[in-house]
Amino acid sequence: MGGTILTDLAAEILIPAAAAVGIAYALVQWILVARVRLSPENEAPWPQRGSGDGVVGGDKNGYDDFLIEEEEGINNRDVVIKCAEIQSAISEGATSFLFTEYQYVGIFMVAFAVLIFLFLGSVEGFSTKSQPCTYSKDKYCKPALANAIFSTASFLLGAITSIVSGFLGMKIATFANARTTLEARKGVGKAFITAFRSGAVMGFLLAANGLLVLYIAINLFKLYYGDDWEGLFESITGYGLGGSSMALFGRVGGGIYTKAADVGADLVGKVERDIPEDDPRNPAVIADNVGDNVGDIAGMGSDLFGSYAESSCAALVVASISSFGINHDFTAMCYPLLISSMGIIVCLITTLFATEFFEIKAVKEIEPTLKRQLIISTALMTAGIAIVSWLALPYKFTIFNFGEQKEVANWQLFFCVAVGLWAGLIIGFVTEYYTSNAYSPVQDVADSCRTGAATNVIFGLALGYKSVIIPIFAIAVSIFVSFSLAAMYGIAVAALGMLSTIATGLAIDAYGPISDNAGGIAEMAGMSHRIRERTDALDAAGNTTAAIGKGFAIGSAALVSLALFGAFVSRANISTVDVLTPKVFIGLIVGAMLPYWFSAMTMKSVGSAALKMVEEVRRQFNSIPGLMEGTVKPDYATCVKISTDASIKEMIPPGALVMLTPLIVGTLFGVETLSGVLAGALVSGVQIAISASNTGGAWDNAKKYIEAGATEHARMLGPKGSDAHKAAVIGDTIGDPLKDTSGPSLNILIKLMAVESLVFAPFFATHGGLLFKIF
Amino acid sequence: MGGTILTDLAAEILIPAAAAVGIAYALVQWILVARVRLSPENEAPWPQRGSGDGVVGGDKNGYDDFLIEEEEGINNRDVVIKCAEIQSAISEGATSFLFTEYQYVGIFMVAFAVLIFLFLGSVEGFSTKSQPCTYSKDKYCKPALANAIFSTASFLLGAITSIVSGFLGMKIATFANARTTLEARKGVGKAFITAFRSGAVMGFLLAANGLLVLYIAINLFKLYYGDDWEGLFESITGYGLGGSSMALFGRVGGGIYTKAADVGADLVGKVERDIPEDDPRNPAVIADNVGDNVGDIAGMGSDLFGSYAESSCAALVVASISSFGINHDFTAMCYPLLISSMGIIVCLITTLFATEFFEIKAVKEIEPTLKRQLIISTALMTAGIAIVSWLALPYKFTIFNFGEQKEVANWQLFFCVAVGLWAGLIIGFVTEYYTSNAYSPVQDVADSCRTGAATNVIFGLALGYKSVIIPIFAIAVSIFVSFSLAAMYGIAVAALGMLSTIATGLAIDAYGPISDNAGGIAEMAGMSHRIRERTDALDAAGNTTAAIGKGFAIGSAALVSLALFGAFVSRANISTVDVLTPKVFIGLIVGAMLPYWFSAMTMKSVGSAALKMVEEVRRQFNSIPGLMEGTVKPDYATCVKISTDASIKEMIPPGALVMLTPLIVGTLFGVETLSGVLAGALVSGVQIAISASNTGGAWDNAKKYIEAGATEHARMLGPKGSDAHKAAVIGDTIGDPLKDTSGPSLNILIKLMAVESLVFAPFFATHGGLLFKIF
Repeated sequence: MGGTILTDLAAEILIPAAAAVGIAYALVQWILVARVRLSPENEAPWPQRGSGDGVVGGDKNGYDDFLIEEEEGINNRDVVIKCAEIQSAISEGATSFLFTEYQYVGIFMVAFAVLIFLFLGSVEGFSTKSQPCTYSKDKYCKPALANAIFSTASFLLGAITSIVSGFLGMKIATFANARTTLEARKGVGKAFITAFRSGAVMGFLLAANGLLVLYIAINLFKLYYGDDWEGLFESITGYGLGGSSMALFGRVGGGIYTKAADVGADLVGKVERDIPEDDPRNPAVIADNVGDNVGDIAGMGSDLFGSYAESSCAALVVASISSFGINHDFTAMCYPLLISSMGIIVCLITTLFATEFFEIKAVKEIEPTLKRQLIISTALMTAGIAIVSWLALPYKFTIFNFGEQKEVANWQLFFCVAVGLWAGLIIGFVTEYYTSNAYSPVQDVADSCRTGAATNVIFGLALGYKSVIIPIFAIAVSIFVSFSLAAMYGIAVAALGMLSTIATGLAIDAYGPISDNAGGIAEMAGMSHRIRERTDALDAAGNTTAAIGKGFAIGSAALVSLALFGAFVSRANISTVDVLTPKVFIGLIVGAMLPYWFSAMTMKSVGSAALKMVEEVRRQFNSIPGLMEGTVKPDYATCVKISTDASIKEMIPPGALVMLTPLIVGTLFGVETLSGVLAGALVSGVQIAISASNTGGAWDNAKKYIEAGATEHARMLGPKGSDAHKAAVIGDTIGDPLKDTSGPSLNILIKLMAVESLVFAPFFATHGGLLFKIF
Repeated sequence: MGGTILTDLAAEILIPAAAAVGIAYALVQWILVARVRLSPENEAPWPQRGSGDGVVGGDKNGYDDFLIEEEEGINNRDVVIKCAEIQSAISEGATSFLFTEYQYVGIFMVAFAVLIFLFLGSVEGFSTKSQPCTYSKDKYCKPALANAIFSTASFLLGAITSIVSGFLGMKIATFANARTTLEARKGVGKAFITAFRSGAVMGFLLAANGLLVLYIAINLFKLYYGDDWEGLFESITGYGLGGSSMALFGRVGGGIYTKAADVGADLVGKVERDIPEDDPRNPAVIADNVGDNVGDIAGMGSDLFGSYAESSCAALVVASISSFGINHDFTAMCYPLLISSMGIIVCLITTLFATEFFEIKAVKEIEPTLKRQLIISTALMTAGIAIVSWLALPYKFTIFNFGEQKEVANWQLFFCVAVGLWAGLIIGFVTEYYTSNAYSPVQDVADSCRTGAATNVIFGLALGYKSVIIPIFAIAVSIFVSFSLAAMYGIAVAALGMLSTIATGLAIDAYGPISDNAGGIAEMAGMSHRIRERTDALDAAGNTTAAIGKGFAIGSAALVSLALFGAFVSRANISTVDVLTPKVFIGLIVGAMLPYWFSAMTMKSVGSAALKMVEEVRRQFNSIPGLMEGTVKPDYATCVKISTDASIKEMIPPGALVMLTPLIVGTLFGVETLSGVLAGALVSGVQIAISASNTGGAWDNAKKYIEAGATEHARMLGPKGSDAHKAAVIGDTIGDPLKDTSGPSLNILIKLMAVESLVFAPFFATHGGLLFKIF
């Protein structure tokens, strides 16, 4: 079998070193963003470039162009103060929502931690004696009680890391949005770089934190577990469960928040009152901007952190019962962590291509630059994977495959990771094709607005359904290749491959909502419409990248859940999941139904919360004199409160559905039926998730296509306010909950049920299937 | 094991006797409908009741009420002539469409028949020698070439029977619609009974024909096969494939036809020109009415005939390798046919409750009467099943269960059939709850129209998703019970149980489009709005029953495809379909994607065809002077041609997807992957089908709820033309392709792929999986 070229000590050093580099890089980016001053004294970030602030007709700003305020003679000082005010209002709203959310989630987390302890502790009746190992019956392993304690601890650790990731992301986003607005005065390139750097802060912090905490946890747990790696990595899976449970509430709660505010604001503002988006007279406007940060930033961050944690845990738990674990080969065991470490370095280099090596000078360069990020990171990472696979793996080793050991070579594992990585890129580009208004699918949807909202919706739904085809084939091919080469371990590392460039992916992704907010702030601060045009251009590219990010998220979720599913099946001691047995088949069909049940809940939640918001906004317009004229400020706080209350209340039923299903099915019907449920939810959920987010993205960009009027065809459909545009706005509004609430939440549904089943597998294997035992 | 109480001779007599009774009853109903005269000389069907036609102020019509024309003094003679003219235009349009469709389908059928012959003949290299039997290797069976020939023959037989069923249904429907209009002048009860009797003609003809042809085919094939029942019933499965292939084109082609016309007519007529539905000035109005007949009547008929044929074939093929077949117990072998025979008798009695024992006197009695039909038929059929199970089954017997024989008692089989029957009833009632505007779900959707079309769509989609939950549990329970009791045979007879009351189900179902057409004819003939109110009331009940019918169709399709899937797996010699093997899993996830791909195609087809229709209708309104004023007739024929051409052209790609997938997957990837594809398509497709048809039904009835204004709440939202009503119309238009094209077509997708796999199983088992064999 042979050893690895990289020594254990080197692995022990390289992993935390990469994490440290990632964190340091994130801090540098933060400092660079912070140099954009939000105070009126001196708002120029690079005074050496000589942008003459406040001096009308003074120096140019390095872009052969005057600051827009200089040209239009708007009072610069007031604008900056206003921007700062609005930013702090958004930041306060977001912070207050997250803290409220964390209170509720905290209670849930503690309760669930107790449940984990009780369920897992009861496996051996809370005995403190060592037990025969699950996979090597001749050896003795730590008692089930230890697994209960450490699983609970790693669960809490995962939840806290997820909270920190989401919170930090939201903080940097709300720190950067007004700064992006101010930079937009100097040119689209400067605004882009501010937004992108802020996104990078989040991306690198999250990737590095996730890696570092997992690394520390493994080393701490090892102090107790010693050579019992089977037990060690079984309890580490709690980390993935913690991350994903938090993500559930982040995605669902945040998703309901943001869309209730958005839909509510649009329905009254744009449709009834005919005022522009983000108009400061709209009472729901602050809630809408807060929503972008808590939903698209904090929620997305938690989601991807969860995927990352779960795919690492799935790989580790399978590895622990393969030759790596049996031979105590630490470097090879840490292969998943080393891949992630390499990912941080690769993403760092990739980011330089956007921030240092090139400079964006025109609007049309934005989207290619972002796309280039994806291509560069994927190309570099392919080499990175090859290096890690060569250095950190023995030439030949064995992987546990449902009761047998399967021989695998290191180059085969390279293919597993690489196929996941490239499948991610393909999914990204297909998503772009179906959601960007540069291509015919979205233009066809826009064209269908000629005959009204109904055809727009029919075409949009058909587009979403169609956009599922290639991503599913890409996922299927990755599954087939990685499964054939290295069984369930192959799937887990393929998922990790897709997520290895997570820092770049998140940077691109977070950039979107930041630009969106920047535009909102420009509108609210009463800045020139040319600023708004620049931020709109940033935002349009952001819409597409957001869709790409969602594509990645769902693609990786599919692989992750399959890997977790495989680990669960191994742990639950079942060697086949035969569709031809009634127990499994009913699980399969009911599992395939769960995403529908869940989506029904989340969509209805958004609908109801939006209705409440509409009523409040209407009430304010009708009862506050001077509001429409802009002489009186609306009551923003009430709208923020409505969104907060609604999302907290409404996230409980869908959350309960996801968290309780595996527990109930496993306890009452046993592991076979639960396997069916997991497989069914996976294959059905992934389709709805992809189609929902692409349909929503396409409607959004079809509307933007008509508004921008960049082509003859678009101008024929437009302008704003035309019948076709009105039809497009209806589509956009319908798409909001699809693409930002129900669609992305499904990632969590499929992942979370799988990881929860895995953590509770020892319990289900011992005490599960009560109903069948009784009858 | 013991014998059956019923002798083989008795079974041989009873089955054709029941079929003959069904056909005779249908003819009686036809004669009764035909007594409503469509000529102005004497349009009173029961002159003895003394309805004074043409004599203003003359006799009363038996309902203590004057004919509406008598009261309003409209010239009776002209109205009747006009109705007859319109009916013949609709009938001609429908006939001409069906004949065009049959030409294309005929070419396809011949080509596919050749394909079946070549594929199946090649299994043993077209050898004419007897071969060892598949299941009992010690015996000799007829050669594979015989199977090729007889499968091809039964395929063509199934296709022709399906064509005849659909065509006869369309004929009686277009024969009855104007008669229903004329009867509506005499009262809602008379109109109801005319529409219902016509529906019954179709229901009984279809059920009896399907049974009779199958019975004759078995007896003819037996002349050649003799004691080789394994080969006999293997080749009989071609009957199911033929029925379903035809249904594919009927459903898809008919579905595109009807919705292109409907959406096109509504978008210009109702939305742009503000003229009522079915206004004779609308050039697409005839095409719309033709569509109801070719889509909802002929398409639905082919679909349910396909389900019936397939579930019978699935049961027979499993039985042939169980003790019934091995012991050559003909009566027990014919159990599925005896259940269907009993079904015809039970439905006949049930129909009397609607036509003879009670009389409808008011609008509010319509829906309860129809619901009572479902309950009565289910209750009577439960007793019927018990009788058949007692008389036609030995007390104990064995059923083939993936390589083993499982012992089953006759009362256990009773439970299998009964659980399917009652699951159907539950699905029916849940569908009613979610789609009838008498309950809160639809009222909530209507309420959401207050804030516009976007919230209407969001709530409607959420309703559809939610409506999936209980039907899936009902299906899951039926599967679990019947599978546990009698393996795949149990599933097949459960499907048959759900379909045993097909005659009543179809009668109720066909009644809807007939009433819809009757309303259209009243509008076009310029009859009193009170006639229209009566037909609208019939139609509103028809909307709900149509949704119930779709619920039955999809529920039975799910069971049927599972049974076929099981038979396929047995025939393909695989004993497990393990989700944990990569071959199966990729099949599962790709299979779950197929319904999306298929729906994308069908929805886009409707959208494109509707756009063409819109342009033509606009062109006529703009270029034909006097059209809007009603002084000049529009060019109906061009619109009929557009619908015909579009549907013929557009049905090819989705048809090819469904027909080619099993062939490609089976040939290239082999039977394991194909099993995955079938299971994935089944569990995913059933959800989309249910949610799509319920969402569409709910939007339709939400609109009708606002229009009818029967409650305080509805009046607050209305009247016609209010903003809320406009939003509701948009929802209704979006729902049209969902509920009448893409949703119901999915039934066929899942059934057809399964039956096709079963028929080609001998080929796949021998030559399949090329790709894996090469690599």
